[in-house]
Amino acid sequence: MRIRDYGIDVGSLPTGKLNKISDVPGVSVGHSTVISEKHQTGVSVVMPCADNPFLHKLPAACFVLNGYGKTAGLVQIDELGTLETPIALTNTLNVGLIHDAMTGYMIDRCAADGVGLTSVNPIVCECNDSRLNNITERVLGKENLLEAISGARADFKEGAVGAGRGMSCHGLKGGIGSASRVLAFDGESFAVGVLVLTNHGKIEDLTVNGDAVGKRISGMPGDSGPERGSCIVILATDLPLCDRQIRRVLKRCPVGMARLGSYVGQGSGEIFVGFSTANRYDTGDRRAIRQVSIFDDAKLDAVFRAAAESTEEAILNAMAAAETVTGYRGFTRRSLSEYL
Amino acid sequence: MRIRDYGIDVGSLPTGKLNKISDVPGVSVGHSTVISEKHQTGVSVVMPCADNPFLHKLPAACFVLNGYGKTAGLVQIDELGTLETPIALTNTLNVGLIHDAMTGYMIDRCAADGVGLTSVNPIVCECNDSRLNNITERVLGKENLLEAISGARADFKEGAVGAGRGMSCHGLKGGIGSASRVLAFDGESFAVGVLVLTNHGKIEDLTVNGDAVGKRISGMPGDSGPERGSCIVILATDLPLCDRQIRRVLKRCPVGMARLGSYVGQGSGEIFVGFSTANRYDTGDRRAIRQVSIFDDAKLDAVFRAAAESTEEAILNAMAAAETVTGYRGFTRRSLSEYL
Amino acid sequence: MRIRDYGIDVGSLPTGKLNKISDVPGVSVGHSTVISEKHQTGVSVVMPCADNPFLHKLPAACFVLNGYGKTAGLVQIDELGTLETPIALTNTLNVGLIHDAMTGYMIDRCAADGVGLTSVNPIVCECNDSRLNNITERVLGKENLLEAISGARADFKEGAVGAGRGMSCHGLKGGIGSASRVLAFDGESFAVGVLVLTNHGKIEDLTVNGDAVGKRISGMPGDSGPERGSCIVILATDLPLCDRQIRRVLKRCPVGMARLGSYVGQGSGEIFVGFSTANRYDTGDRRAIRQVSIFDDAKLDAVFRAAAESTEEAILNAMAAAETVTGYRGFTRRSLSEYL
Amino acid sequence: MRIRDYGIDVGSLPTGKLNKISDVPGVSVGHSTVISEKHQTGVSVVMPCADNPFLHKLPAACFVLNGYGKTAGLVQIDELGTLETPIALTNTLNVGLIHDAMTGYMIDRCAADGVGLTSVNPIVCECNDSRLNNITERVLGKENLLEAISGARADFKEGAVGAGRGMSCHGLKGGIGSASRVLAFDGESFAVGVLVLTNHGKIEDLTVNGDAVGKRISGMPGDSGPERGSCIVILATDLPLCDRQIRRVLKRCPVGMARLGSYVGQGSGEIFVGFSTANRYDTGDRRAIRQVSIFDDAKLDAVFRAAAESTEEAILNAMAAAETVTGYRGFTRRSLSEYL
Repeated sequence: MRIRDYGIDVGSLPTGKLNKISDVPGVSVGHSTVISEKHQTGVSVVMPCADNPFLHKLPAACFVLNGYGKTAGLVQIDELGTLETPIALTNTLNVGLIHDAMTGYMIDRCAADGVGLTSVNPIVCECNDSRLNNITERVLGKENLLEAISGARADFKEGAVGAGRGMSCHGLKGGIGSASRVLAFDGESFAVGVLVLTNHGKIEDLTVNGDAVGKRISGMPGDSGPERGSCIVILATDLPLCDRQIRRVLKRCPVGMARLGSYVGQGSGEIFVGFSTANRYDTGDRRAIRQVSIFDDAKLDAVFRAAAESTEEAILNAMAAAETVTGYRGFTRRSLSEYL
Repeated sequence: MRIRDYGIDVGSLPTGKLNKISDVPGVSVGHSTVISEKHQTGVSVVMPCADNPFLHKLPAACFVLNGYGKTAGLVQIDELGTLETPIALTNTLNVGLIHDAMTGYMIDRCAADGVGLTSVNPIVCECNDSRLNNITERVLGKENLLEAISGARADFKEGAVGAGRGMSCHGLKGGIGSASRVLAFDGESFAVGVLVLTNHGKIEDLTVNGDAVGKRISGMPGDSGPERGSCIVILATDLPLCDRQIRRVLKRCPVGMARLGSYVGQGSGEIFVGFSTANRYDTGDRRAIRQVSIFDDAKLDAVFRAAAESTEEAILNAMAAAETVTGYRGFTRRSLSEYL
Repeated sequence: MRIRDYGIDVGSLPTGKLNKISDVPGVSVGHSTVISEKHQTGVSVVMPCADNPFLHKLPAACFVLNGYGKTAGLVQIDELGTLETPIALTNTLNVGLIHDAMTGYMIDRCAADGVGLTSVNPIVCECNDSRLNNITERVLGKENLLEAISGARADFKEGAVGAGRGMSCHGLKGGIGSASRVLAFDGESFAVGVLVLTNHGKIEDLTVNGDAVGKRISGMPGDSGPERGSCIVILATDLPLCDRQIRRVLKRCPVGMARLGSYVGQGSGEIFVGFSTANRYDTGDRRAIRQVSIFDDAKLDAVFRAAAESTEEAILNAMAAAETVTGYRGFTRRSLSEYL
Repeated sequence: MRIRDYGIDVGSLPTGKLNKISDVPGVSVGHSTVISEKHQTGVSVVMPCADNPFLHKLPAACFVLNGYGKTAGLVQIDELGTLETPIALTNTLNVGLIHDAMTGYMIDRCAADGVGLTSVNPIVCECNDSRLNNITERVLGKENLLEAISGARADFKEGAVGAGRGMSCHGLKGGIGSASRVLAFDGESFAVGVLVLTNHGKIEDLTVNGDAVGKRISGMPGDSGPERGSCIVILATDLPLCDRQIRRVLKRCPVGMARLGSYVGQGSGEIFVGFSTANRYDTGDRRAIRQVSIFDDAKLDAVFRAAAESTEEAILNAMAAAETVTGYRGFTRRSLSEYL
């Protein structure tokens, strides 16, 4: 069940066919979920393209709204404006092992493509699932990453899966969510899609399409304490945006979070990574100068709206799809679906 | 009439006594308004302190959400983390003359204090009032700045005054607004206050406390066209925040804008400038090392909420206080108060 | 006399025909110089193109190494990645009046092109000439800007002219200097050119091609005191660089300053602005998506070297060309040419 | 043998007692070096303090001159302005495993201090040693990190040790180097120290105190190809600098690199991380507001000079101390000491 299945529409723009980030052609998502007595955690991956991203890099950018986080790989994205690996999402303390797993995966994948890789920039994003998961035992490794990658598909699962397994959102169960919008320019259709890993917000602040539902349903265990604010947003588009334009678009994703009640708590990171599947950069091309297409900044308003709407709906999809989970030491996060 | 006079409360934190930026001790605001057949424009100033800010600089920071704007002075604030002049707000094409006027004012003020000033960093923020004002005739100069400064007071006017005279907001009349919140730490009370110059948003997006009022009242001339998004937010506090912390607080002001329906349009600048009145830096002090107080980042959540709530309420105050104005070439912006 | 006329070559790359920023086709430079009993000051302009830059914007970027400065217009360059006016250089306290003059010039120029301009982003850079110039009397206005613009040419003057009239460099006379390098890619030739306004450095640190000449010639009045570090560098190229790449190139200009002995003093701003004359953005084009050429980051090494060498040589050209000047209150800065 | 042992002094400021980063009280450095037929690599750690940095965080900042690198942990330093772990340095593809090793080390160390750690921000810097090391086999893990940490001392080794084992610099053998300067303020003495991991530069550009030695000794195998530019600089001081001031100081470290001939090549990262051992932030302190000391920006010139000089000398120390190494597939990097 997604949020629209409950009769709740977000925004005014038309959605893509799947209403997921994978409405951008070539993009797919996979998960590896770990469920045990002590662990509720996992890895999710956003595959930006079907072929090897290291050999055909994608224009990319990031925006850090709250840098209280451990996401790895942003320095090079800022400098070169390109993405060269899948994007992994996992829990805070497992960043290192997934970073190494992605390094190994890329070495192998490039070797299969006949390229000896000696440098690569894995992107590993994270939220902290320590309420539901025994986070200090870093149980996620190469097998989990490979499972997530091999299982990646366009019509992927949302909710308490993959990296979202142990996450909380507005005092309820959080997780993985997605949404998309389609736009027309110069007679062609383009998609803007978003995937979120939600782990932020206080329950009393939760507001859905103007309805302060959080105030009605608050009062459960775990409500108190500071807003933690951790939320990862991955944005994809097939519009030919340059890295500077992608960054501009990413800056509108927080609008969707604010609409739902977040005040962007100080306690954890809100980090936005975006890429375009147009104008890919072929590393085998020896020319110094190439032709690319570029989008007009003056037309960005609709893209901004698409980013904000998609983020808002993706967060609601994550909450609607995530079932109630009882995890480490018996702590429970209830599903929003129980209240819809 | 302010927004609370219409029974509309914003947020949950207690307001300051005036519910204005001037609840921060020492802060005052003044206006110079120009109304003529061709002109609806003006200058507003935020005086950060009663004494000379150049001789006792204030910790300061800025955050640029959308840099499609002409605000002057941010480079030095970023580098040195201090504010050394009043902050002026005016229209886009008048930035140069007000910059020069502020330069002259500071030369004179420092001379009166026995200091020969040879370098100063005026802060001049702007929005574009070209719908209601004949903006290409830059009619604002030294006299207007001095009038605004000499008229600065704690209980200042809001609405279609000063720099706000020609501004529009969500398709209605915009202008100057303010609000504040009070917070307690370590047994003491502190204020966070905000002043906004609102010139952003589309009418169909306007949402007040979850009520999509904009959709009901749209359909007036001038509604169409892209969201322009221009909004200046000045934030003051007497909390002992360093420049990095002030920047963190400023990043939560857009939450207030998003709640009201803004998607942060591409067409104009959204710029946030903040300062603290604690820990002022005495330029006459010859010691290399001094003692200051500093705030704990872990306690910032309440300050973030105060910034978001104050920004949201200040925008509504600007709209509620601004009367209907008919300006250049007969163009009219109606007041929100007609619909409340 | 330029530095090569004294037998001092800088770096290894070939220079352009003029060995000036104007080796980039379309770029020209003009000056207005004010010399009086109290004033040694002026305005210089870099014209980025022969036609109206507002109607055909140029890819641009900036890099702030030391933001202790008052340069106006960088916020919008960072956001939109474009330059839409000539670049003016002047003294610190005259930024406002030259900003207004540029605003007026652009209004008039756009009107002549049939465009009603209601928003424009003037770029005004500055250094502080208060040792040689009575800086508090802001004597530069619209006439000076127009004189500089109308006098702009490819084979412009260097030294104690325009904005450089009152500047000091490494305890000697500073001013305006320029240099260029030519590079070949894909069988075509491209230019990288630099214009500097030098007002930085201590004499005892001055080093020319490894020779610590400053230590030999120091001991003159005015040597003592902190390094002020103010230096403006304008970089142009006809390579099709995007804004991100231009910023990368600008970050190599400080190499040239460091080679000459600068430690980048805390006291004033070191600001770098660059633009490309390729891929200009036609504001009258209604398409959302256009074709542009783009340069491969992997080929940037030679461009970086060109930027560093050009900056180093331009600073030496400024010093070699600047004659000894005695200014306000009889203060004198001697010419480097007296020691060469 | 250090560079001063060859009669080459750098700069004019007095050095600390050890002339190393460890002249800052509490700072120590350790290495774990792996030497085998296929591997020339290792880990180095900078211990910022004798006690647990997570419980008493240190003011910190970073500066990215060239972000073509994979350093992890900078996002949180930028946001919070604090360092909470030792700083690890290693090779590019081993970042993930050392990140995980540091995570484990911090969990254990906090447990020993009675604190249950659920979030931590490891700082892992890297250069690429793939010429001398079989980098794709990531052989460095927890044991190496623990060996480096347990062996940390004030009088640590320089040269081809730890992370420096497989690095190259200006076509010769690079590695780990260090230097320091002492400064007096308000009658007290303070230290500024630097540790570098050098892996940058072309041999023909190498210049020592103005002597273009590189041109004389170039012509060896491996000279050709692009400048790679990778250099990590860690800076420590006991001056009470805030994060903004530390960043200002870091921006002067590249001066030392430029003096030696670097043009800051595009191909790899140049990243600067600094911290202060004054004003440590006690996470157990429940007060919102505390007293700290703060340094006056106007006095920073000497600190800037100390940073530039220390960086220049540290790079030379790395090269002077590093012996000739023959590594993976028989590739050899000769020692600068052979030419001194």
